[in-house]
Amino acid sequence: MKAKRVLKANVTEGNADRLTEICRTAAQFFYEKGFDATSVSDIADAMKLTKAALYYYIEGKQELLFEIMNRGMDALEREVIAPAEMAADAKARLEAIIHNHARQIAAGNHAVTIISDEVSALTAAQRKKITARRRAYFDFVRVTLDELKTEGKLHDIDTTVAAFSVVGMILWVSRWYQPGGSLTPDDVSREISKIAFNALLSPTSINEERNTKK
Amino acid sequence: MKAKRVLKANVTEGNADRLTEICRTAAQFFYEKGFDATSVSDIADAMKLTKAALYYYIEGKQELLFEIMNRGMDALEREVIAPAEMAADAKARLEAIIHNHARQIAAGNHAVTIISDEVSALTAAQRKKITARRRAYFDFVRVTLDELKTEGKLHDIDTTVAAFSVVGMILWVSRWYQPGGSLTPDDVSREISKIAFNALLSPTSINEERNTKK
Repeated sequence: MKAKRVLKANVTEGNADRLTEICRTAAQFFYEKGFDATSVSDIADAMKLTKAALYYYIEGKQELLFEIMNRGMDALEREVIAPAEMAADAKARLEAIIHNHARQIAAGNHAVTIISDEVSALTAAQRKKITARRRAYFDFVRVTLDELKTEGKLHDIDTTVAAFSVVGMILWVSRWYQPGGSLTPDDVSREISKIAFNALLSPTSINEERNTKK
Repeated sequence: MKAKRVLKANVTEGNADRLTEICRTAAQFFYEKGFDATSVSDIADAMKLTKAALYYYIEGKQELLFEIMNRGMDALEREVIAPAEMAADAKARLEAIIHNHARQIAAGNHAVTIISDEVSALTAAQRKKITARRRAYFDFVRVTLDELKTEGKLHDIDTTVAAFSVVGMILWVSRWYQPGGSLTPDDVSREISKIAFNALLSPTSINEERNTKK
Protein backbone atom coordinates (compact mmCIF):
# COMPACT_ATOMS: atom_id res chain seq x y z
CA MET A 1 0.00 0.00 0.00
CA LYS A 2 3.05 2.27 0.32
CA ALA A 3 3.21 5.05 -2.27
CA LYS A 4 6.44 5.76 -4.10
CA ARG A 5 8.14 8.80 -2.57
CA VAL A 6 10.28 11.54 -4.07
CA LEU A 7 12.77 11.86 -1.24
CA LYS A 8 16.40 12.76 -1.59
CA ALA A 9 18.81 9.83 -1.39
CA ASN A 10 20.72 11.99 1.13
CA VAL A 11 18.23 11.02 3.81
CA THR A 12 19.65 7.95 5.52
CA GLU A 13 18.99 6.26 8.85
CA GLY A 14 21.64 8.47 10.43
CA ASN A 15 19.90 11.76 9.66
CA ALA A 16 16.28 10.64 9.49
CA ASP A 17 15.46 12.39 12.79
CA ARG A 18 16.41 15.72 11.31
CA LEU A 19 13.98 15.18 8.43
CA THR A 20 11.27 14.30 10.97
CA GLU A 21 11.93 17.60 12.73
CA ILE A 22 11.81 19.47 9.39
CA CYS A 23 8.43 17.86 8.62
CA ARG A 24 6.97 18.90 11.99
CA THR A 25 8.27 22.46 11.66
CA ALA A 26 6.93 22.77 8.12
CA ALA A 27 3.52 21.35 9.11
CA GLN A 28 3.26 23.98 11.87
CA PHE A 29 4.04 26.78 9.39
CA PHE A 30 1.66 25.42 6.74
CA TYR A 31 -1.05 25.21 9.38
CA GLU A 32 -0.53 28.65 10.91
CA LYS A 33 0.48 30.73 7.86
CA GLY A 34 -0.97 28.62 5.06
CA PHE A 35 1.02 26.61 2.50
CA ASP A 36 1.32 29.43 -0.06
CA ALA A 37 2.39 32.07 2.45
CA THR A 38 5.13 29.83 3.92
CA SER A 39 8.56 30.07 2.29
CA VAL A 40 11.40 27.55 2.41
CA SER A 41 13.34 30.30 4.24
CA ASP A 42 10.71 30.38 7.02
CA ILE A 43 11.27 26.67 7.62
CA ALA A 44 15.09 26.93 7.34
CA ASP A 45 15.17 29.88 9.78
CA ALA A 46 13.00 28.09 12.34
CA MET A 47 15.27 25.01 12.06
CA LYS A 48 18.40 27.22 12.32
CA LEU A 49 19.57 25.83 8.97
CA THR A 50 20.67 27.61 5.81
CA LYS A 51 18.38 27.16 2.82
CA ALA A 52 21.12 25.09 1.16
CA ALA A 53 21.31 22.80 4.19
CA LEU A 54 17.53 22.37 4.08
CA TYR A 55 17.65 21.47 0.38
CA TYR A 56 20.07 18.70 1.34
CA TYR A 57 17.00 16.92 2.77
CA ILE A 58 14.12 18.09 0.62
CA GLU A 59 13.44 18.79 -3.06
CA GLY A 60 11.07 21.67 -2.33
CA LYS A 61 8.02 22.86 -0.43
CA GLN A 62 5.52 20.74 -2.33
CA GLU A 63 7.56 17.53 -1.85
CA LEU A 64 7.76 18.39 1.84
CA LEU A 65 3.96 18.62 2.06
CA PHE A 66 3.68 15.30 0.19
CA GLU A 67 6.23 13.74 2.59
CA ILE A 68 4.24 15.01 5.62
CA MET A 69 1.06 13.44 4.27
CA ASN A 70 2.78 10.14 3.45
CA ARG A 71 4.23 10.00 6.96
CA GLY A 72 0.74 10.51 8.35
CA MET A 73 -0.53 7.61 6.24
CA ASP A 74 2.50 5.46 7.23
CA ALA A 75 1.67 6.00 10.92
CA LEU A 76 -2.00 5.20 10.27
CA GLU A 77 -1.06 1.93 8.54
CA ARG A 78 1.42 0.97 11.26
CA GLU A 79 -0.57 1.95 14.37
CA VAL A 80 -4.18 1.56 13.25
CA ILE A 81 -4.57 -0.66 10.16
CA ALA A 82 -1.92 -3.32 10.94
CA PRO A 83 -3.15 -4.08 14.51
CA ALA A 84 -6.77 -4.10 13.26
CA GLU A 85 -5.88 -6.59 10.51
CA MET A 86 -4.74 -9.02 13.20
CA ALA A 87 -8.04 -8.84 15.09
CA ALA A 88 -10.04 -12.07 15.46
CA ASP A 89 -13.32 -10.82 13.98
CA ALA A 90 -15.06 -7.77 12.54
CA LYS A 91 -16.13 -6.43 15.94
CA ALA A 92 -12.61 -6.65 17.37
CA ARG A 93 -11.33 -5.04 14.16
CA LEU A 94 -13.74 -2.11 14.51
CA GLU A 95 -12.74 -1.74 18.15
CA ALA A 96 -9.03 -1.67 17.23
CA ILE A 97 -9.60 0.87 14.43
CA ILE A 98 -11.57 3.33 16.56
CA HIS A 99 -9.50 2.99 19.72
CA ASN A 100 -6.10 3.27 18.03
CA HIS A 101 -7.05 5.98 15.56
CA ALA A 102 -8.69 8.22 18.18
CA ARG A 103 -5.69 7.77 20.47
CA GLN A 104 -3.24 8.50 17.65
CA ILE A 105 -5.01 11.74 16.71
CA ALA A 106 -5.30 12.97 20.32
CA ALA A 107 -1.68 12.13 21.15
CA GLY A 108 -0.26 13.19 17.78
CA ASN A 109 0.72 16.45 16.14
CA HIS A 110 -2.46 18.33 15.26
CA ALA A 111 -0.81 20.52 12.62
CA VAL A 112 0.30 17.36 10.78
CA THR A 113 -3.23 15.91 10.95
CA ILE A 114 -4.96 19.08 9.79
CA ILE A 115 -2.47 19.88 7.05
CA SER A 116 -2.91 16.33 5.73
CA ASP A 117 -6.31 17.47 4.53
CA GLU A 118 -4.85 20.17 2.25
CA VAL A 119 -4.49 18.01 -0.85
CA SER A 120 -5.20 20.95 -3.18
CA ALA A 121 -1.57 22.18 -2.82
CA LEU A 122 -0.20 18.87 -4.21
CA THR A 123 0.55 18.04 -7.84
CA ALA A 124 -2.08 15.91 -9.58
CA ALA A 125 0.17 12.81 -9.34
CA GLN A 126 0.85 13.35 -5.62
CA ARG A 127 -2.82 14.00 -4.92
CA LYS A 128 -3.76 10.75 -6.66
CA LYS A 129 -1.40 8.76 -4.42
CA ILE A 130 -2.57 10.35 -1.18
CA THR A 131 -6.23 10.01 -2.17
CA ALA A 132 -5.71 6.31 -2.98
CA ARG A 133 -4.10 5.66 0.44
CA ARG A 134 -6.98 7.46 2.21
CA ARG A 135 -9.54 5.62 0.13
CA ALA A 136 -7.95 2.27 1.09
CA TYR A 137 -8.38 3.16 4.78
CA PHE A 138 -11.96 4.28 4.28
CA ASP A 139 -12.77 1.05 2.41
CA PHE A 140 -11.20 -0.97 5.25
CA VAL A 141 -13.59 0.72 7.71
CA ARG A 142 -16.62 0.34 5.43
CA VAL A 143 -15.94 -3.35 4.68
CA THR A 144 -15.65 -3.97 8.44
CA LEU A 145 -19.07 -2.34 8.93
CA ASP A 146 -20.51 -4.40 6.03
CA GLU A 147 -19.29 -7.58 7.72
CA LEU A 148 -20.87 -6.52 11.01
CA LYS A 149 -24.10 -5.80 9.15
CA THR A 150 -24.09 -9.33 7.65
CA GLU A 151 -23.47 -10.74 11.13
CA GLY A 152 -26.54 -8.81 12.36
CA LYS A 153 -24.43 -6.80 14.79
CA LEU A 154 -24.95 -3.36 13.26
CA HIS A 155 -27.77 -0.88 13.74
CA ASP A 156 -29.98 -0.44 10.69
CA ILE A 157 -27.70 2.21 9.12
CA ASP A 158 -26.10 2.96 5.76
CA THR A 159 -22.52 1.66 6.06
CA THR A 160 -21.06 4.34 3.75
CA VAL A 161 -22.53 7.22 5.77
CA ALA A 162 -21.53 5.39 8.97
CA ALA A 163 -17.92 4.87 7.86
CA PHE A 164 -17.52 8.53 6.89
CA SER A 165 -19.18 9.64 10.13
CA VAL A 166 -16.96 7.61 12.42
CA VAL A 167 -13.75 8.54 10.57
CA GLY A 168 -14.86 12.19 10.53
CA MET A 169 -15.60 12.15 14.25
CA ILE A 170 -12.11 10.78 14.92
CA LEU A 171 -10.27 13.18 12.57
CA TRP A 172 -12.22 16.07 14.14
CA VAL A 173 -10.42 15.43 17.44
CA SER A 174 -7.43 17.32 15.99
CA ARG A 175 -9.61 20.44 15.71
CA TRP A 176 -10.84 20.59 19.29
CA TYR A 177 -8.60 18.54 21.58
CA GLN A 178 -6.32 20.62 23.80
CA PRO A 179 -3.30 18.60 24.99
CA GLY A 180 -2.57 19.21 28.66
CA GLY A 181 -6.22 19.95 29.49
CA SER A 182 -8.49 17.87 31.70
CA LEU A 183 -8.80 15.02 29.16
CA THR A 184 -5.82 12.72 28.43
CA PRO A 185 -5.44 11.06 24.99
CA ASP A 186 -6.61 7.83 26.67
CA ASP A 187 -9.76 9.58 27.97
CA VAL A 188 -10.52 10.85 24.46
CA SER A 189 -9.91 7.43 22.95
CA ARG A 190 -12.18 5.76 25.53
CA GLU A 191 -15.01 8.31 25.14
CA ILE A 192 -14.85 8.32 21.33
CA SER A 193 -14.88 4.49 21.38
CA LYS A 194 -18.02 4.46 23.54
CA ILE A 195 -19.77 7.04 21.35
CA ALA A 196 -18.81 5.27 18.10
CA PHE A 197 -19.71 1.80 19.41
CA ASN A 198 -23.14 3.01 20.52
CA ALA A 199 -23.57 4.76 17.17
CA LEU A 200 -22.77 1.67 15.14
CA LEU A 201 -23.39 -1.56 17.05
CA SER A 202 -26.73 -2.92 18.19
CA PRO A 203 -27.11 -2.95 22.03
CA THR A 204 -27.15 -6.78 22.16
CA SER A 205 -23.89 -6.87 20.25
CA ILE A 206 -22.24 -4.35 22.62
CA ASN A 207 -23.48 -6.26 25.69
CA GLU A 208 -22.18 -9.56 24.29
CA GLU A 209 -18.73 -8.04 24.34
CA ARG A 210 -19.10 -6.78 27.90
CA ASN A 211 -20.12 -10.25 29.02
CA THR A 212 -17.13 -11.84 27.25
CA LYS A 213 -14.79 -9.38 28.93
CA LYS A 214 -16.06 -10.13 32.46
CA MET B 1 -25.66 36.90 18.88
CA LYS B 2 -25.07 38.74 15.57
CA ALA B 3 -21.51 40.05 15.19
CA LYS B 4 -20.91 43.57 13.91
CA ARG B 5 -19.98 43.47 10.23
CA VAL B 6 -17.70 45.66 8.17
CA LEU B 7 -19.79 45.77 5.02
CA LYS B 8 -20.01 48.64 2.61
CA ALA B 9 -23.12 50.80 2.97
CA ASN B 10 -23.46 50.38 -0.82
CA VAL B 11 -24.93 46.95 -0.29
CA THR B 12 -28.69 47.41 -0.13
CA GLU B 13 -31.65 45.09 -0.52
CA GLY B 14 -31.67 45.81 -4.24
CA ASN B 15 -28.16 44.47 -4.90
CA ALA B 16 -27.82 41.93 -2.06
CA ASP B 17 -28.07 39.00 -4.52
CA ARG B 18 -24.95 40.20 -6.30
CA LEU B 19 -23.02 40.18 -3.01
CA THR B 20 -24.30 36.64 -2.35
CA GLU B 21 -22.93 35.59 -5.73
CA ILE B 22 -19.59 37.30 -4.98
CA CYS B 23 -19.37 35.39 -1.68
CA ARG B 24 -20.00 32.02 -3.37
CA THR B 25 -17.47 32.72 -6.10
CA ALA B 26 -14.85 33.84 -3.59
CA ALA B 27 -15.44 30.80 -1.34
CA GLN B 28 -14.90 28.51 -4.34
CA PHE B 29 -11.59 30.25 -5.15
CA PHE B 30 -10.43 30.28 -1.52
CA TYR B 31 -11.25 26.58 -1.32
CA GLU B 32 -9.61 25.51 -4.59
CA LYS B 33 -6.61 27.87 -4.77
CA GLY B 34 -6.22 28.82 -1.11
CA PHE B 35 -6.94 32.24 0.42
CA ASP B 36 -3.43 33.65 -0.09
CA ALA B 37 -3.13 32.53 -3.72
CA THR B 38 -6.51 34.05 -4.66
CA SER B 39 -6.47 37.68 -5.82
CA VAL B 40 -9.34 40.15 -5.92
CA SER B 41 -8.82 40.11 -9.73
CA ASP B 42 -9.53 36.34 -9.82
CA ILE B 43 -12.89 36.95 -8.18
CA ALA B 44 -13.68 40.01 -10.32
CA ASP B 45 -12.80 38.14 -13.54
CA ALA B 46 -14.95 35.14 -12.62
CA MET B 47 -17.84 37.50 -11.84
CA LYS B 48 -17.23 39.43 -15.11
CA LEU B 49 -16.82 42.60 -13.06
CA THR B 50 -14.05 45.17 -13.03
CA LYS B 51 -12.02 45.33 -9.82
CA ALA B 52 -13.52 48.78 -9.17
CA ALA B 53 -17.03 47.35 -9.51
CA LEU B 54 -16.14 44.58 -7.07
CA TYR B 55 -14.81 47.11 -4.56
CA TYR B 56 -18.21 48.78 -4.72
CA TYR B 57 -19.44 45.78 -2.68
CA ILE B 58 -16.46 44.73 -0.60
CA GLU B 59 -13.67 46.40 1.36
CA GLY B 60 -11.15 43.70 0.49
CA LYS B 61 -10.34 39.99 0.42
CA GLN B 62 -10.16 39.56 4.19
CA GLU B 63 -13.51 41.30 4.76
CA LEU B 64 -14.97 39.03 2.10
CA LEU B 65 -13.77 35.93 3.96
CA PHE B 66 -15.19 37.37 7.20
CA GLU B 67 -18.50 38.06 5.43
CA ILE B 68 -18.62 34.47 4.09
CA MET B 69 -18.09 33.08 7.60
CA ASN B 70 -20.70 35.40 9.11
CA ARG B 71 -23.21 34.36 6.47
CA GLY B 72 -22.53 30.73 7.34
CA MET B 73 -23.20 31.49 11.01
CA ASP B 74 -26.34 33.53 10.11
CA ALA B 75 -27.71 30.52 8.21
CA LEU B 76 -26.87 28.21 11.12
CA GLU B 77 -28.68 30.49 13.57
CA ARG B 78 -31.70 30.85 11.28
CA GLU B 79 -32.08 27.23 10.08
CA VAL B 80 -30.65 25.21 12.99
CA ILE B 81 -30.51 27.14 16.26
CA ALA B 82 -33.79 29.11 15.99
CA PRO B 83 -36.00 26.04 15.20
CA ALA B 84 -34.20 24.03 17.94
CA GLU B 85 -34.86 26.79 20.48
CA MET B 86 -38.58 26.35 19.88
CA ALA B 87 -38.49 22.60 20.59
CA ALA B 88 -40.58 21.31 23.50
CA ASP B 89 -37.78 19.53 25.38
CA ALA B 90 -34.09 18.64 25.26
CA LYS B 91 -34.63 15.51 23.15
CA ALA B 92 -36.69 17.35 20.54
CA ARG B 93 -34.05 20.10 20.59
CA LEU B 94 -31.25 17.60 19.92
CA GLU B 95 -33.30 16.05 17.12
CA ALA B 96 -33.87 19.47 15.52
CA ILE B 97 -30.19 20.40 15.78
CA ILE B 98 -28.88 17.19 14.19
CA HIS B 99 -31.53 16.89 11.52
CA ASN B 100 -31.43 20.51 10.36
CA HIS B 101 -27.67 20.93 10.58
CA ALA B 102 -26.89 17.70 8.66
CA ARG B 103 -29.44 18.66 6.01
CA GLN B 104 -28.06 22.18 5.74
CA ILE B 105 -24.49 20.93 5.22
CA ALA B 106 -25.48 18.28 2.65
CA ALA B 107 -27.69 20.68 0.68
CA GLY B 108 -25.43 23.71 1.07
CA ASN B 109 -22.30 25.02 -0.60
CA HIS B 110 -19.38 22.84 0.50
CA ALA B 111 -16.72 25.42 -0.34
CA VAL B 112 -18.46 27.89 2.01
CA THR B 113 -18.60 25.27 4.79
CA ILE B 114 -14.99 24.20 4.44
CA ILE B 115 -13.59 27.72 4.05
CA SER B 116 -15.46 28.72 7.23
CA ASP B 117 -12.88 26.66 9.09
CA GLU B 118 -9.97 28.83 7.85
CA VAL B 119 -10.02 31.36 10.68
CA SER B 120 -6.23 31.84 10.52
CA ALA B 121 -6.60 34.21 7.53
CA LEU B 122 -8.78 36.60 9.57
CA THR B 123 -7.62 39.57 11.65
CA ALA B 124 -7.49 38.93 15.41
CA ALA B 125 -10.69 40.97 15.94
CA GLN B 126 -12.57 39.11 13.19
CA ARG B 127 -11.34 35.74 14.46
CA LYS B 128 -12.58 36.58 17.95
CA LYS B 129 -16.07 37.31 16.63
CA ILE B 130 -16.32 34.14 14.52
CA THR B 131 -14.90 32.00 17.32
CA ALA B 132 -17.46 33.44 19.76
CA ARG B 133 -20.34 32.65 17.40
CA ARG B 134 -19.09 29.08 16.92
CA ARG B 135 -18.56 28.67 20.65
CA ALA B 136 -22.15 29.76 21.30
CA TYR B 137 -23.39 27.01 18.97
CA PHE B 138 -21.15 24.40 20.55
CA ASP B 139 -22.36 25.41 24.03
CA PHE B 140 -25.97 25.15 22.84
CA VAL B 141 -25.32 21.53 21.79
CA ARG B 142 -23.40 20.68 24.97
CA VAL B 143 -26.03 22.20 27.30
CA THR B 144 -28.70 20.18 25.46
CA LEU B 145 -26.67 17.00 26.10
CA ASP B 146 -26.18 18.00 29.76
CA GLU B 147 -29.97 18.35 30.15
CA LEU B 148 -30.50 14.93 28.57
CA LYS B 149 -27.93 13.49 30.96
CA THR B 150 -29.79 14.96 33.95
CA GLU B 151 -33.01 13.47 32.59
CA GLY B 152 -31.28 10.06 32.43
CA LYS B 153 -31.75 9.88 28.67
CA LEU B 154 -28.09 9.94 27.66
CA HIS B 155 -25.57 7.10 27.42
CA ASP B 156 -22.84 7.23 30.06
CA ILE B 157 -20.62 9.57 28.00
CA ASP B 158 -18.65 12.79 28.47
CA THR B 159 -20.92 15.55 27.11
CA THR B 160 -18.02 17.71 25.91
CA VAL B 161 -16.48 14.90 23.82
CA ALA B 162 -19.98 13.94 22.66
CA ALA B 163 -20.87 17.50 21.57
CA PHE B 164 -17.64 17.87 19.59
CA SER B 165 -18.09 14.42 18.06
CA VAL B 166 -21.61 15.01 16.81
CA VAL B 167 -20.84 18.50 15.46
CA GLY B 168 -17.66 17.12 13.83
CA MET B 169 -19.56 14.25 12.23
CA ILE B 170 -22.06 16.72 10.76
CA LEU B 171 -19.46 19.24 9.53
CA TRP B 172 -17.53 16.34 7.97
CA VAL B 173 -20.42 15.77 5.54
CA SER B 174 -19.06 18.71 3.50
CA ARG B 175 -15.83 16.74 2.93
CA TRP B 176 -17.36 13.55 1.57
CA TYR B 177 -20.89 14.16 0.34
CA GLN B 178 -21.23 14.25 -3.47
CA PRO B 179 -24.36 16.10 -4.54
CA GLY B 180 -26.17 14.30 -7.36
CA GLY B 181 -24.94 10.86 -6.21
CA SER B 182 -27.10 8.04 -4.86
CA LEU B 183 -27.78 9.80 -1.53
CA THR B 184 -30.04 12.89 -1.37
CA PRO B 185 -29.52 15.55 1.33
CA ASP B 186 -32.59 14.09 3.08
CA ASP B 187 -31.01 10.60 3.05
CA VAL B 188 -27.84 12.01 4.60
CA SER B 189 -29.79 13.92 7.22
CA ARG B 190 -31.84 10.80 8.12
CA GLU B 191 -28.79 8.49 8.33
CA ILE B 192 -26.70 10.99 10.32
CA SER B 193 -29.67 11.49 12.69
CA LYS B 194 -29.94 7.72 13.29
CA ILE B 195 -26.19 7.38 13.86
CA ALA B 196 -26.02 10.39 16.19
CA PHE B 197 -29.15 9.39 18.13
CA ASN B 198 -27.80 5.88 18.70
CA ALA B 199 -24.45 7.37 19.70
CA LEU B 200 -25.94 9.72 22.28
CA LEU B 201 -29.29 8.51 23.59
CA SER B 202 -29.95 5.43 25.68
CA PRO B 203 -32.01 2.75 23.83
CA THR B 204 -35.02 3.20 26.17
CA SER B 205 -35.01 6.91 25.45
CA ILE B 206 -34.92 6.34 21.66
CA ASN B 207 -37.72 3.78 21.88
CA GLU B 208 -39.84 6.12 24.00
CA GLU B 209 -39.78 8.53 21.12
CA ARG B 210 -40.73 5.86 18.60
CA ASN B 211 -43.70 4.90 20.77
CA THR B 212 -44.79 8.52 21.12
CA LYS B 213 -44.66 8.98 17.35
CA LYS B 214 -46.86 5.93 16.66
